[in-house]
Amino acid sequence: MTTSKANISTPSEREIRIERIFNAPRERVWQALTEPALVAQWWGRGNKLVVERMELERGGHWRFVEHGPDGVHGFEGRYREVKPPERVVQTFEWDGMPGHVAVETMTLEDLGDGRTRIVTVSLFHTREERDGMLHSGMEGGLNESYAALDRVLARLNQ
Amino acid sequence: MTTSKANISTPSEREIRIERIFNAPRERVWQALTEPALVAQWWGRGNKLVVERMELERGGHWRFVEHGPDGVHGFEGRYREVKPPERVVQTFEWDGMPGHVAVETMTLEDLGDGRTRIVTVSLFHTREERDGMLHSGMEGGLNESYAALDRVLARLNQ
Repeated sequence: MTTSKANISTPSEREIRIERIFNAPRERVWQALTEPALVAQWWGRGNKLVVERMELERGGHWRFVEHGPDGVHGFEGRYREVKPPERVVQTFEWDGMPGHVAVETMTLEDLGDGRTRIVTVSLFHTREERDGMLHSGMEGGLNESYAALDRVLARLNQ
Repeated sequence: MTTSKANISTPSEREIRIERIFNAPRERVWQALTEPALVAQWWGRGNKLVVERMELERGGHWRFVEHGPDGVHGFEGRYREVKPPERVVQTFEWDGMPGHVAVETMTLEDLGDGRTRIVTVSLFHTREERDGMLHSGMEGGLNESYAALDRVLARLNQ
């Protein structure tokens, strides 16, 4: 299996759109995105990830802590909408910039051939916050996470 | 002491600006805004208010639960910036619309005559969320809270 890069674009001055196709059916991708033990295997790009909270329902909170070579990084937010197996809307913030909150709308599209497209649109309060995220090295981290997700899905498909 | 109404305006399509003058020096107003036992006396407009969390520092969380005649309402957020006695930037969301997050920038201006002006600018992700807040009955609730704050300040001034 070759690992493809995510397609990243900026549909408006406060948004980032990320698109990536995965070689697994939608129910399987949903499982990898929502079971805490599986999330821990890919979200942190191979680094140790502690899923402190993952209350996957409207109003529930989530908090993940990544233990990487450059230190410990906490991320958290709250679920706005959860519609299995096709849609999650949640907020996202990094402890390093507390109170800077993006809204992430993630859609899982069943491509009908055993593959699934994930599209995530993140909306920021300001263009500056959006640009800060773009320049944070997110693209490299994202592709590492998605490559780890490919590996989780390959194991689930066996 | 007469109770004045807050001045509410919309400086941009995603913002609400609230301005109100209080008959107390800035240090006293800061105290009433930041000591949990005092916040509990005015924030809930006279309803019982439980201050579950109030970690008043950058990155800290807050969560207040109001017990009113129409039920129990939780509110929460995170502090982005805390600069005594003049400025707090924090996020705000209501449990009833989880994941809909406004950023509130509150400034305390010392008017030099024993009075203090509080200006709060709230920035929403979308115009629709801003309008939802405007039409939620916020103005009445706000004026009730600020009238309760007037009473707290009058007691502190004694």
